Amino acid sequence: MDRDLTAVSLPGRLAGPGEGISLEELALAARNHGMPLEALRYPLTPPGLHYVLVHYDIPAAVAADWRITVGGLVRTALRLDPADLRAFPPVTLRVTMECAGNGRARLTPRPVSQPWLVEAVGTAEWTGVPLRVLLREAGVEPGAVEAVFTGADHGVERGVEQDYRRSLPLGVALGGDPEVLVAYAMNGEPLPPQHGHPVRLVVPGWYGMAQVKWLCDISLTGTPFTGFQQAVAYRYRNAADDPGEPVTRIAPRALMIPPGFPDFMSRTRVLRPGRTGLEGRAWSGRAPVTRVEVSTDDGRTWHDAALDAAEGGVWAWRHWHTAWTATPGSHVLAVRATDGDGRTQPLDQPWNRGGFGNNLVQRIPVECLPGGG
Amino acid sequence: MDRDLTAVSLPGRLAGPGEGISLEELALAARNHGMPLEALRYPLTPPGLHYVLVHYDIPAAVAADWRITVGGLVRTALRLDPADLRAFPPVTLRVTMECAGNGRARLTPRPVSQPWLVEAVGTAEWTGVPLRVLLREAGVEPGAVEAVFTGADHGVERGVEQDYRRSLPLGVALGGDPEVLVAYAMNGEPLPPQHGHPVRLVVPGWYGMAQVKWLCDISLTGTPFTGFQQAVAYRYRNAADDPGEPVTRIAPRALMIPPGFPDFMSRTRVLRPGRTGLEGRAWSGRAPVTRVEVSTDDGRTWHDAALDAAEGGVWAWRHWHTAWTATPGSHVLAVRATDGDGRTQPLDQPWNRGGFGNNLVQRIPVECLPGGG
Repeated sequence: MDRDLTAVSLPGRLAGPGEGISLEELALAARNHGMPLEALRYPLTPPGLHYVLVHYDIPAAVAADWRITVGGLVRTALRLDPADLRAFPPVTLRVTMECAGNGRARLTPRPVSQPWLVEAVGTAEWTGVPLRVLLREAGVEPGAVEAVFTGADHGVERGVEQDYRRSLPLGVALGGDPEVLVAYAMNGEPLPPQHGHPVRLVVPGWYGMAQVKWLCDISLTGTPFTGFQQAVAYRYRNAADDPGEPVTRIAPRALMIPPGFPDFMSRTRVLRPGRTGLEGRAWSGRAPVTRVEVSTDDGRTWHDAALDAAEGGVWAWRHWHTAWTATPGSHVLAVRATDGDGRTQPLDQPWNRGGFGNNLVQRIPVECLPGGG
Repeated sequence: MDRDLTAVSLPGRLAGPGEGISLEELALAARNHGMPLEALRYPLTPPGLHYVLVHYDIPAAVAADWRITVGGLVRTALRLDPADLRAFPPVTLRVTMECAGNGRARLTPRPVSQPWLVEAVGTAEWTGVPLRVLLREAGVEPGAVEAVFTGADHGVERGVEQDYRRSLPLGVALGGDPEVLVAYAMNGEPLPPQHGHPVRLVVPGWYGMAQVKWLCDISLTGTPFTGFQQAVAYRYRNAADDPGEPVTRIAPRALMIPPGFPDFMSRTRVLRPGRTGLEGRAWSGRAPVTRVEVSTDDGRTWHDAALDAAEGGVWAWRHWHTAWTATPGSHVLAVRATDGDGRTQPLDQPWNRGGFGNNLVQRIPVECLPGGG
């Protein structure tokens, strides 16, 4: 840790019992944002509704001046601009992205960081060049074990000054399953500033920390990358001195469009008695979602929802729907997904010090008014 | 108040001393969002970075099915679809919009509501039909005193179930200064869902509560509108039983792009010694901004910044810039605007129970590292 930075950059911590959200957490919540859950109605999330997490500042990037270098253990170093990337045959993938910290703010105790409730998700069509095509073009030297990706966003985190930087094992970078993209378009348009303009990485099925934005360098290395975002952050740890396991792929999750209408302040849902459609979307970065179950009695009983045909490939969420006859009074709705690997969302919080991979089932309290109102 | 709704919808309140941000406030912060301050670099805010506040849910609006009715005290009621609106000669205005509650979360005591820090602002070019053209087309009947605007967003607020609804005095609706628009495009594109797709009201110079989104009805009335958003919310009150004054136009404010780079968690700014450009934008909904002053010693001394030529008309923010020679240590930067009516931003918080119109000067703590690092 740079000693000069200790005044502005504190170690990670857990909130104390009953400690409200701090102004620092609020500052992150005010600039980053989730997807309002009613936007689950859109198969493709409009860019301004897709969740956004930016560690530092959005860089002042100008596409015409942007260069991406490919170097390290390659035969021929490359230096490409966005127009060079567009000259390769384009590949478009529909991908559901989720922040690894989604659900963090509801954990007990709460890791103090970006305070997501449950809405840090979105789905977009990303267009770009497969990473393996670029790496073949450069020529991978023997001995390369990882690809390290550098973004142009610069800041300090827990005392370490850094550009945002993450790696992938070479097998993932070259593997084609998932097809990793060096992407320059989102839903057919140039990337918006907050989504990595002009070029970003897209790693389908992985949590957001892998999707390096404002990508400016790709370097093949002969030893595993030990930078902050790989070796310190984004690890499943139960104690501060636990080396932990790396956060990688997205755990299964289903979300429901909250039915009825909200109270402005409490966000409690209000509806009227009678038949109510319940719907939402479900995804997993591990294996296709195979089952979605809904409970209308706070998890005591569950029934299967209809899972609609997959739209847009294996990396995108699937729509589900069912119906419920609402009766006057208070109810708690819940939904859970199971994927083809047999992973199901837990009913008790999966806790770790970073608050990562928390796919606790969503619970929606609703108040059904008396009839005839 | 509907008695059935009292369980889900509580009266407004102030946070207690030292009370952290609640999960309810966080739920609003997670779905609404401000403009990251580095986006002050863009003269026109990209739609996904423009601040958004949605009281209830974003409606599932389909442009082809949308109708706007114009009725009440008019000679000929109108029923228009978006294509009808596009048949009128279009008017485009560049407008800086700000939420009336901007700055609320830093007030002491803190009104419990959408917890903005200072970033609830954005500037866009809105295209549409002048409201006065539509009202002339319908023919205003004698006796009309207000125009009431209904949005399609539906919810509960402090026990009152409602569609979002606001009014303007007839003189403002017909006046042409500001030119009120029934807008169907933002920065040349159809409105995004969260900005009122397919049609919204734009009232240049007024705070955001006047800019009714998902506009579906305009009604001229013979008595002033007393609905919730006009008579209960959005009033400057010092006590709960004070009738208060209505919130209308935007008070002057300048914001600075935070210089240097941030710490992820504390958002404290870090920079290196030497000459540092300071820049940002300033606006007022009352009169043109005539002066921007900057302090680099926490408000003890001030000097004038250069105010660049107005770009895009009188309703848009103006760029300002100056320079500062940073020296190692801790500093607090501040900026304040003055408008042509002589209004200047206060150094002490302007407080009211709703936390409206708080244009306290922005203060940015920065940590300048030792040289040679």
